[in-house]
Amino acid sequence: MIPIPKGYRYAATAAGFKYSGRNDLAAIVSERDAHVAGVFTKNAFTAAPVMQCKEQLAANLTTARAILVNAGQANACTGEAGLADCRLTLEWAEQELGVPAGSIYPCSTGVIGPRLPMDKFRSSLPVLADTLGHSSPLDVAKAIMTTDAFPKLAWGAVEVHGHEVRILGICKGAGMICPDMATMLGFILTDGGVEQGALQTALSRAVDASFNAVTVDGDTSTNDTVLALANNGSGVVVGSDAMDAFTEALTEVCQALAYMLVQDGEGATKVVSITVRRAASEADAKLAARTIAHSPLVKTAMFGCDANWGRIVAALGRSGAQFNPDHVTVRIGNVAIFERGVPVHEDFDSLLAPHMQGRDIRIEVDLDEGGAYATVLASDLGHEYVNINADYRS
Amino acid sequence: MIPIPKGYRYAATAAGFKYSGRNDLAAIVSERDAHVAGVFTKNAFTAAPVMQCKEQLAANLTTARAILVNAGQANACTGEAGLADCRLTLEWAEQELGVPAGSIYPCSTGVIGPRLPMDKFRSSLPVLADTLGHSSPLDVAKAIMTTDAFPKLAWGAVEVHGHEVRILGICKGAGMICPDMATMLGFILTDGGVEQGALQTALSRAVDASFNAVTVDGDTSTNDTVLALANNGSGVVVGSDAMDAFTEALTEVCQALAYMLVQDGEGATKVVSITVRRAASEADAKLAARTIAHSPLVKTAMFGCDANWGRIVAALGRSGAQFNPDHVTVRIGNVAIFERGVPVHEDFDSLLAPHMQGRDIRIEVDLDEGGAYATVLASDLGHEYVNINADYRS
Repeated sequence: MIPIPKGYRYAATAAGFKYSGRNDLAAIVSERDAHVAGVFTKNAFTAAPVMQCKEQLAANLTTARAILVNAGQANACTGEAGLADCRLTLEWAEQELGVPAGSIYPCSTGVIGPRLPMDKFRSSLPVLADTLGHSSPLDVAKAIMTTDAFPKLAWGAVEVHGHEVRILGICKGAGMICPDMATMLGFILTDGGVEQGALQTALSRAVDASFNAVTVDGDTSTNDTVLALANNGSGVVVGSDAMDAFTEALTEVCQALAYMLVQDGEGATKVVSITVRRAASEADAKLAARTIAHSPLVKTAMFGCDANWGRIVAALGRSGAQFNPDHVTVRIGNVAIFERGVPVHEDFDSLLAPHMQGRDIRIEVDLDEGGAYATVLASDLGHEYVNINADYRS
Repeated sequence: MIPIPKGYRYAATAAGFKYSGRNDLAAIVSERDAHVAGVFTKNAFTAAPVMQCKEQLAANLTTARAILVNAGQANACTGEAGLADCRLTLEWAEQELGVPAGSIYPCSTGVIGPRLPMDKFRSSLPVLADTLGHSSPLDVAKAIMTTDAFPKLAWGAVEVHGHEVRILGICKGAGMICPDMATMLGFILTDGGVEQGALQTALSRAVDASFNAVTVDGDTSTNDTVLALANNGSGVVVGSDAMDAFTEALTEVCQALAYMLVQDGEGATKVVSITVRRAASEADAKLAARTIAHSPLVKTAMFGCDANWGRIVAALGRSGAQFNPDHVTVRIGNVAIFERGVPVHEDFDSLLAPHMQGRDIRIEVDLDEGGAYATVLASDLGHEYVNINADYRS
């Protein structure tokens, strides 16, 4: 049974924003004031709901009561009118959900450009409110899907002085091959009592080790948002002595969600884990891992179940990371296929076939330069990616 | 008729390195000492022939006599043994071609990792020498192809004080979507009398405005090489007063070749020209143009004939270039579809259909920040790219 955090209610309904026969408007309401933390896209084109969330977060740190989210329109590149739309939906939601507009955090996902269908939004909010308490986290996870193939939920718990604190994560996103769309939303709910500053620090660390390890820095969309709410519904205060354990549990929830994002990468057939070890610095390790992870030639080789170390080292070579080419070793599935600058001449194609044909592929690069490391998860690149993205708007 | 530069002879033969039923070993021999200039890959994994070319270029600036090139094995990631192989082929070629080993510039293209098949190399060199003078530039262009769909030749001429100086370009390369393979070789031959320093400056400028405008900085393979030879076969000295005109003609030849590289991009159906105007700096313009050019989501949209401005602005937004999102205008095929931060609401799908369905697509981004601009050529991303790259080694 999922350990659902105490003190949250869920709502979902079909507003008909873009999809038919499914829910596309959802809300999460905390029964009491929650502390809130957020991590947002760095894209220069910031969607209206992201601007609004940031503004609220800057102005009001203690009274988050709800998340309101729609799928279909991203409300990005919609100018001042889009921001006004966003604010109007919060005013309407205040009346229907019974919590202050300034405590409702808005999120949107979908096509960039179109305005929100305000008539539909207005008329659907009372219906949404009626489902409050009758919907589940899974209903919310389903309602926020766009090109996602499956809903994404993860959970965990941490014991604080003998009492359980629960953490639930809901997210959506599928275009992780290069997430420059209005793609990724994540909501983390806990019933622990966590101070705002500590919650923000924990969330930033967790996101860095999870969602940011499946995307390139700055490779964010107009709408990417991760919000964390801590409402102390359990009555268990997570003090500074328990923050490490809490952060670890939070990170695990985020990593589980991040894995699902890659697994559900548009058209993906593989989850490729690229670890760069013994780098001169963490920045170097990330740079190298991400350059390999984003190489279309590496990605297509993975799709083709081809242990093509040549493409891996070529991508590494242009990454800009510091290393001596003659000291580099590459392992796939724990087998060294390239050792200290030269390929190991064995019949790897048959040796590695079982590993390459599986869903999870492990690439390890040893730079022999220092003590830093980084891991990035990547999807492969196959025909379904082209199919999905060549006609997403239609 | 192609204005072939005077004083060069061409050779090509089938050594059976990898392909059957076609030539894969070629040489270009200058009848007299030529000045030579080169631009090489910045990849940390530098192939043996690139190391050798650089060494010769650093040691000996005046006596280039030949280019020797094989297709099938890149001789990259082959360590000291690969470098020794490369040097041995030059010693053999000295005997067969009758020019000093140190004046022969070696190039290799093909699979990264395998050693050169030295027996085949040795036995094929006399046959290669026999074809010298009986082969054409087109024969060389065909012999150096790997995944190329067609051979690539371009030419031009410049008049210097009433006398013609000819420029011929031969190149290969098809994996230009992200050229991190042993991909791109270019040979530029002129019969003008050009000093080495001036030739290097002209070549570097020409490459920057052509081959480097279809690739990302540093997105170079282990083997990428452009060599220019100037043998004064015409007896026309290109003095400093004529260098601008010469550089312009050289650039046009390189740009024609670069266009063919994109046109022949693996699985490409489009040549997409991305121009960023009125940027704060040229670096910003390049950064923005290249981020858009390399976005898989933009590339798949182009493949799908979809004028998807949302993906263009999302890529622009994460490029790191400096601009105000509210001042950005995007045009496709000269039609403004996104103006000063918001989409123009018209039926562009039908309006732009003829342009989008053509082979050449023009994207223009106006940043309204300054006076700098840059253009990058990109191929689209379709099913053939996946087909070619998922099983290139097999």
